[in-house]
Amino acid sequence: MKPGRLEAFSDGVFAVAITLLVFNLKVPTTADGGLGRALGHQWPSYFAYVISFLSIGICWVNHHSILDRVVVADRELLFINLGLLLGIVSIPYSTSLAATWINHGVDSKWALGLYSGIWVYVSSMYILLIRHLMSHDHLASDFKGVTLKTLLRKGIIGLVIYFFAFLSALLFPLISLAICFILAAYYVVGVNETD
Amino acid sequence: MKPGRLEAFSDGVFAVAITLLVFNLKVPTTADGGLGRALGHQWPSYFAYVISFLSIGICWVNHHSILDRVVVADRELLFINLGLLLGIVSIPYSTSLAATWINHGVDSKWALGLYSGIWVYVSSMYILLIRHLMSHDHLASDFKGVTLKTLLRKGIIGLVIYFFAFLSALLFPLISLAICFILAAYYVVGVNETD
Amino acid sequence: MKPGRLEAFSDGVFAVAITLLVFNLKVPTTADGGLGRALGHQWPSYFAYVISFLSIGICWVNHHSILDRVVVADRELLFINLGLLLGIVSIPYSTSLAATWINHGVDSKWALGLYSGIWVYVSSMYILLIRHLMSHDHLASDFKGVTLKTLLRKGIIGLVIYFFAFLSALLFPLISLAICFILAAYYVVGVNETD
Amino acid sequence: MKPGRLEAFSDGVFAVAITLLVFNLKVPTTADGGLGRALGHQWPSYFAYVISFLSIGICWVNHHSILDRVVVADRELLFINLGLLLGIVSIPYSTSLAATWINHGVDSKWALGLYSGIWVYVSSMYILLIRHLMSHDHLASDFKGVTLKTLLRKGIIGLVIYFFAFLSALLFPLISLAICFILAAYYVVGVNETD
Repeated sequence: MKPGRLEAFSDGVFAVAITLLVFNLKVPTTADGGLGRALGHQWPSYFAYVISFLSIGICWVNHHSILDRVVVADRELLFINLGLLLGIVSIPYSTSLAATWINHGVDSKWALGLYSGIWVYVSSMYILLIRHLMSHDHLASDFKGVTLKTLLRKGIIGLVIYFFAFLSALLFPLISLAICFILAAYYVVGVNETD
Repeated sequence: MKPGRLEAFSDGVFAVAITLLVFNLKVPTTADGGLGRALGHQWPSYFAYVISFLSIGICWVNHHSILDRVVVADRELLFINLGLLLGIVSIPYSTSLAATWINHGVDSKWALGLYSGIWVYVSSMYILLIRHLMSHDHLASDFKGVTLKTLLRKGIIGLVIYFFAFLSALLFPLISLAICFILAAYYVVGVNETD
Repeated sequence: MKPGRLEAFSDGVFAVAITLLVFNLKVPTTADGGLGRALGHQWPSYFAYVISFLSIGICWVNHHSILDRVVVADRELLFINLGLLLGIVSIPYSTSLAATWINHGVDSKWALGLYSGIWVYVSSMYILLIRHLMSHDHLASDFKGVTLKTLLRKGIIGLVIYFFAFLSALLFPLISLAICFILAAYYVVGVNETD
Repeated sequence: MKPGRLEAFSDGVFAVAITLLVFNLKVPTTADGGLGRALGHQWPSYFAYVISFLSIGICWVNHHSILDRVVVADRELLFINLGLLLGIVSIPYSTSLAATWINHGVDSKWALGLYSGIWVYVSSMYILLIRHLMSHDHLASDFKGVTLKTLLRKGIIGLVIYFFAFLSALLFPLISLAICFILAAYYVVGVNETD
């Protein structure tokens, strides 16, 4: 398969998933203490919305970096990619779950565990995708800039941090969310490489 | 019509439909026995979500295999394709129906019957699409790899299995869902052909 | 503007709008007389879903026929196109309105009036789009197949029929919906021209 | 990164966001004084829907004008663009907030303040995007038509007007919405430049 249509389909899924995050933001229907206060109480939704938006955006950038190197796509690649998208499509749900339950004591562990767990899953699929390309020379070409090896190294760092966020979720859910936020923010701000 | 825009539109519909599956996953609003338990009770939603995601993904791969051979699209092709997309767009609904009603005794027959029935419809539209291309030589070219004849044979096998799942739904709804799952899993894992 | 990106954006809007029609289909939450009966009572939703799906699909085919002729897009064209898309995006809403209220006596006149009224609006925007291209020679080229003049003639016939459906809505709402269905079905089946 | 895929992803997000505006239009479930009256009471939803649709459409046109000049995209550009899209994706929410609360006295200040505030944010991101291109010569080329300088000037005018709408929201919420409407309408009608 020509990688063009794979990119187009993946871009479509990324674009829809990132836009569906807006359903996390619910218009308050009653506002006893004033609308300003009601909106203020929704801060977890806003916070989770921004984190997930940036994170999906970063995933899209990375996805592009990887697919840019693909010359021809085999069936296995298609299905690894599909597995990756399965994770991305779940993010609006896990984001909503995290925002809804973050202030509910012990239950927040489940919510944040699932939230960070899905990012662990997505990171794993990235590594699988890169490794598949590395072990099938004819599929990819390291024509310029960042090499697959560099992408793999960064993917593993991401996986480790998300796994740490997952473990934190079971003990200190808020710290888990903070880790996800710092990771995303660091990635966006740290523009110290060419691509 | 140049097949490029037909592909772009179809890819868009596939991408949106597969992403809308996320609405099947509902954030629990109350959790008397703990959030973990509430999430556990939602297993049919998660299971149906994964089955439908994989199945739509497979449809997209097959759709690409077929359209890749199209040189020029006539009006009839456009409308057969539209009929196919009509089925795909219904999947988020039928998935939700199946997940909601699977544990409701006799009513689950209706839900699973409709779920597998829509896959029967989609398979039929695929066969119609391939047959239209086979009987109009100027539309398609068997330039390489899998031939239209092979795609047709596989399409018919899919139709037969989905029809069997449909019949099962009326007697053993859970078996019907299992058939759909096995078919999807087999297709994903069985990477034994080039394309 | 190169017409390519205009097509891509329009295709995206068409694809999302046609897929959002699925939200018209609501999973029954209670089913006292059995799920089969509950599904049966939803026939207006299914019927309206199919009509709107086919109609948006036909619009997309026509939109392609027009934009295929565009060589360069000016700002006016962009905004006429935006006006057209405004109508298309409203269809999932008007479809839902029609399906919900069709069996409510006098209220159904409002629902079907709005449903067919939006199609009158969409048809008008099509005619505006074609006329703009006809009066600005440098924008379009009648390179082959159906001419802009033919498209205009067909557009006017569509407008007249939808206007008739709009008038019917005020007296016999069901007949109004039937007209919309027959128009769509006729268009799909009547494959008597090349493009 | 080649700007092509950046455009495709952005177009996808714009297309989904503009289509999700339809969820602002809610089908009335009860209609004591008749459906016509119930629909009439929804005028703020319709009004806000049209304003936001036109405004997102205009943003898309402007976004195209800017990206059309991009020759190669660096990481910073990707993330400024992502920041811009973050604002666009929020519009269906802020539109719904504005339409729901516009008639609720003091609370409407919050709703309209947030609505116009997001447009202030979007305008700022546009200016950031243009400035980034202007200060990195190798990224963009002023090949023809409107220059980046002209786009910047128009961007600043838009920012000032939206900021004024934001201030108005705190005193006269309805005037704030009127400003947003007039700005959009003026932009659509004022076709006095080539591109």
